[in-house]
Amino acid sequence: MTGTVYLVGSGPGDPELLTVRAARLIDEADVVLHDKLPGPEIIEDIPEGKREDVGKRAGGERTPQSEINQRLVDLAEEGNDVVRLKGGDPFVFGRGGEEMEYLADHGVPVEVVPGITSAVGAAGVGGIPVTHRDYASSVSFVTGHEDPTKAESAVDWQALADTGGTIVVLMGVGKLPDYTRALREAGMDPETPVALVERGTWPEMRVATGTLDTVVDARDERGIEPPAITVIGDVAAVRDRVVEFLRGRGSGRNGGDGRSGGDDA
Amino acid sequence: MTGTVYLVGSGPGDPELLTVRAARLIDEADVVLHDKLPGPEIIEDIPEGKREDVGKRAGGERTPQSEINQRLVDLAEEGNDVVRLKGGDPFVFGRGGEEMEYLADHGVPVEVVPGITSAVGAAGVGGIPVTHRDYASSVSFVTGHEDPTKAESAVDWQALADTGGTIVVLMGVGKLPDYTRALREAGMDPETPVALVERGTWPEMRVATGTLDTVVDARDERGIEPPAITVIGDVAAVRDRVVEFLRGRGSGRNGGDGRSGGDDA
Repeated sequence: MTGTVYLVGSGPGDPELLTVRAARLIDEADVVLHDKLPGPEIIEDIPEGKREDVGKRAGGERTPQSEINQRLVDLAEEGNDVVRLKGGDPFVFGRGGEEMEYLADHGVPVEVVPGITSAVGAAGVGGIPVTHRDYASSVSFVTGHEDPTKAESAVDWQALADTGGTIVVLMGVGKLPDYTRALREAGMDPETPVALVERGTWPEMRVATGTLDTVVDARDERGIEPPAITVIGDVAAVRDRVVEFLRGRGSGRNGGDGRSGGDDA
Repeated sequence: MTGTVYLVGSGPGDPELLTVRAARLIDEADVVLHDKLPGPEIIEDIPEGKREDVGKRAGGERTPQSEINQRLVDLAEEGNDVVRLKGGDPFVFGRGGEEMEYLADHGVPVEVVPGITSAVGAAGVGGIPVTHRDYASSVSFVTGHEDPTKAESAVDWQALADTGGTIVVLMGVGKLPDYTRALREAGMDPETPVALVERGTWPEMRVATGTLDTVVDARDERGIEPPAITVIGDVAAVRDRVVEFLRGRGSGRNGGDGRSGGDDA
């Protein structure tokens, strides 16, 4: 009797931002396959006996996607109910689509359990609304893994700039200088507010803010490291206006500091 | 002693897609202010004594946003801990940004509790990954409430088409003919797959699929009604390839049917 594979999003990292269903399925699963992207507090809560880390192989390199796909099929065919636990949402740059297709191609029942994508959740907890009636009538998500100087880059920064909406870049700490330049060259105002949110919703969450012109310096001064999201657009300035009354992990009261441009006090 | 206002996203409608924190805060709150957007199963689970519906006023018209803002401040100043419960995520076309700013302006502590936006979750449960390594390296969210024939429309459909990524339109059933035409005129392939997901993750969830050219007919044949999202891009075709092995509310096994172009069998 073939088991079911549940493609489960774990959200941005705070264990309380797991969905009720995700928490239940983790509890009921025979095996939980995960990588390093779900928050460490979430991973530690899973009984060690049913955790399987597919983030890295013994040698230290990443497990190829094809190997993860096949492992899911094998476990299900052995009769296990499997939770494939992803950071954020399985379908927002999570390669969940490929896993779902592979499972269906091999006749394995699959259920999708969405999670809160960091692109929305990490920003929101930090007091940054990705859309806003006054400032942004659309929001676009891209990843920063692409090299925007490559001619064949799949991301059209000109078109993204032209939307006039908020742009959220996931995994975009390293390439920040490249795509902020690409957006300025595409005609975006260099004074456009930008916020970097590192480890959003984690206890050590940190925020740095600046503009398209200054945010690379802000990143370096604050030592912002991956994982982080970059929010580009007028909405990024909302945080400064509300942070004094903001509560929870985004307030800067636990770990890090959170205040834009502030010290680690 | 002023209470705290929690701006809480309830997700796409399935009560199990509430976050653990949302469920706890609803339980602990003195008052839960909601409108019609959270799923009915979620509203019914809230004890009647602490529910306050701000979706409609006695006369039937919508409560003005300014009135909701002030009600939140008044309740908090009376010492109540208030959950302001929104459909999806509070910051994805939810006007949560305005509420957060108003609360901070009035010195009321506010915490943001993100939820799963329907733009991602309703699509995902239906087997549609909004991004995919092979088909879409970005995803953009807009609302269909804007009239794309207005010269001053804030949504730049040309730029959205030019991104080459997935486009998800929230609240876009009525204006479907307008923006599918705008996207064709912007040069998008009329054969681009499009999926409509009505009441995604609700028991009566339904899906209709077509192309930029045919989806208006598909909508009419299936009688798709709001609330629904529209997913535009090659990813919309993934559902058909996996639906046979899809489980859960997106599978068409409970209520509606879910199968693209199928009958209500």
